[in-house]
Amino acid sequence: MINTISVLGSTGSVGVKSLEVAQKLGIKIFALSAGRNISLLEKQISLFSPKFVCVELFEDAKKLSYRFKNIKFLFGTKGLQEISTLIEPEIVVNSVSGFEGIFPAFSAINAGKTLALANKESIVSSGSVLTKLARDKGTKILPLDSEHNAIWQCLQTNLKTESVVPGISVKNVKKLILTASGGPFLGMKCSELENVTPEEAVKHPVWNMGAKISVDSATMVNKGLEIIEAAYLFDIDPFKIDVTIHTECVIHSMVEFNDNSVLAQMANADMKSPIFYALAYPKRIQNNTKPLDFSNLNSLSFRKPENSILNLCRKAAILGNASTCAISASNEMAVNAFLQKKIKFLDIETVIDYAMAKCKFKNAETLEEIIKIDSESRSIAKEKIEEISKNEF
Amino acid sequence: MINTISVLGSTGSVGVKSLEVAQKLGIKIFALSAGRNISLLEKQISLFSPKFVCVELFEDAKKLSYRFKNIKFLFGTKGLQEISTLIEPEIVVNSVSGFEGIFPAFSAINAGKTLALANKESIVSSGSVLTKLARDKGTKILPLDSEHNAIWQCLQTNLKTESVVPGISVKNVKKLILTASGGPFLGMKCSELENVTPEEAVKHPVWNMGAKISVDSATMVNKGLEIIEAAYLFDIDPFKIDVTIHTECVIHSMVEFNDNSVLAQMANADMKSPIFYALAYPKRIQNNTKPLDFSNLNSLSFRKPENSILNLCRKAAILGNASTCAISASNEMAVNAFLQKKIKFLDIETVIDYAMAKCKFKNAETLEEIIKIDSESRSIAKEKIEEISKNEF
Repeated sequence: MINTISVLGSTGSVGVKSLEVAQKLGIKIFALSAGRNISLLEKQISLFSPKFVCVELFEDAKKLSYRFKNIKFLFGTKGLQEISTLIEPEIVVNSVSGFEGIFPAFSAINAGKTLALANKESIVSSGSVLTKLARDKGTKILPLDSEHNAIWQCLQTNLKTESVVPGISVKNVKKLILTASGGPFLGMKCSELENVTPEEAVKHPVWNMGAKISVDSATMVNKGLEIIEAAYLFDIDPFKIDVTIHTECVIHSMVEFNDNSVLAQMANADMKSPIFYALAYPKRIQNNTKPLDFSNLNSLSFRKPENSILNLCRKAAILGNASTCAISASNEMAVNAFLQKKIKFLDIETVIDYAMAKCKFKNAETLEEIIKIDSESRSIAKEKIEEISKNEF
Repeated sequence: MINTISVLGSTGSVGVKSLEVAQKLGIKIFALSAGRNISLLEKQISLFSPKFVCVELFEDAKKLSYRFKNIKFLFGTKGLQEISTLIEPEIVVNSVSGFEGIFPAFSAINAGKTLALANKESIVSSGSVLTKLARDKGTKILPLDSEHNAIWQCLQTNLKTESVVPGISVKNVKKLILTASGGPFLGMKCSELENVTPEEAVKHPVWNMGAKISVDSATMVNKGLEIIEAAYLFDIDPFKIDVTIHTECVIHSMVEFNDNSVLAQMANADMKSPIFYALAYPKRIQNNTKPLDFSNLNSLSFRKPENSILNLCRKAAILGNASTCAISASNEMAVNAFLQKKIKFLDIETVIDYAMAKCKFKNAETLEEIIKIDSESRSIAKEKIEEISKNEF
């Protein structure tokens, strides 16, 4: 069992759960990072006594350093990168929100740390650059997304393997099957979707998550990003990654092997489950998640999803990180614009389509190139958002 | 991939499927054994050209040896034992029906052969004697029962392990969950079960199987024997083995780990699936089983089974092989008596209860002691069957 971890993005939903899991497992917290939710961060600092803390703003770092004299405070992207390279923690949990998460992801792997990854933008944007770096450094990536974590569990093997996800092989795999809750708008027609509000979109039927990821779930972009993430993480053809709508959220994903046998991972919907698996791996430790009760379980159902955004994401994953980075960046811009009521719900996909079509970049080979593609994709998306916004409102 | 196997019990349903699978995988058949279905056996001999063949009766062996000059024929239990010890085949598939299967099981393992096991009576009767022998000889047992095969698939690990089933660990396991179709009489009350006929009992809703195992499925004794089998095979406390009724027969069994995460193995109900897994292990080879189609799948349901016979079997597994052997032997006798209409359906459990209560044997440590317990248990069962039969008919 590991002794010490750092938790980046500690005030977000995955961060909070990660701290709870670490506490249950008796793992010490070496460093924390958060954005601007300082009141929660202060509670976490008091409870976990980290040695290093990073916040977004210089002023917050300064204020906190008066209150907590024995802790070293850092701030901004640079602080986030520095905090990821500290030697002591065995695992860096990266649950930073959005593209910003790419910085600690690269820093942690560069420093040879095991990366427990909840931030999907970093791997969607960087693609094989991140996984190649992990291979070169001989370090591992532990997927925290419930779907990828499920697949990690299903792919356990005693075969020799080169995977960046520990202990797995995709040698005998026919396809991965990601399950999707279908989000709050499942079964609604385009005409009904046209005027849904941000308030409706963030009401997820099963998972209690942040606003951005709730909207992504409603648009199914989240599932598209997960296809990309799975393609890069598990090093598998994105057209071998299927999605099935499974509204009960009991099966978190499945693997179909070449011999047509399927393994599925199940648990009550609780982000603590995948975090427990990742932090205790390869052990499985008794914990406070609620066991499934098969005698009281609703029937498990499955249905086919709409495929347009999913296929766009598959195609992007084939094209490489310039395209997947453009999707992630333009989606982040579009979701923000939707949450700020600058564009409508269905415009989100329009913005992504536009950015993908306009994206003429060469695939990146370094973090610097990725940052450039991200930033230019955002400009393209912004252009489109302003155009829509002018016409609609 | 292996080159050569022997298939014992080749004319039974698992035997037939094993030959089909071997053919698809390009595996040669070194030896066959069958009981009295000589016409099917002749076809199999012509198709697979084995070097050795064993049948039940001397006369059949004699007749066949005139027709097939280049094949060595054997007969009876001794022939079955001899055929299991031949050096050439890498795996001995034991799908012999009933207690008789214990002889080739011990012989094969004694000869250091990998045993693919469909005959559950051999492990239920001998318990840890068989698994200890396998450990001493450094050989492995590959479970062919769809439930145990499913658990084998779910337990794959990259941890070091001493298990007789290859590549698995039960270190982190909270419980095994065997799924049960519920058989043809699911949901019927005792009063309705009283007069069901052998013809009704052998009509299994999903699996097409032999008469004995169909009746075992209808009484749920089959599931009780599977609990015992799983306890011995996976070396796990029988009270950590649950059963859930799952009428769709898509999930073939599950494992709940200490962290409350569940892995389930799914496939369309087809005995070829577990056989493909066992014979191709650790590879998974494309084959002619039908893949699951999640967009057209019925909802998967679960419910609690009646527990009396299951708990009796769990208790027997705790007591050891004298008790589990008595259950298996008395059940075999009772099912035969039921099929011959000497006793009624509900009497089967009465006979088992009686044999269990009367069983005062010390646990066996050798095959000879097991044979003695089996034979005396049959006498006890016979006694009860005759008593019931006199009173009822």
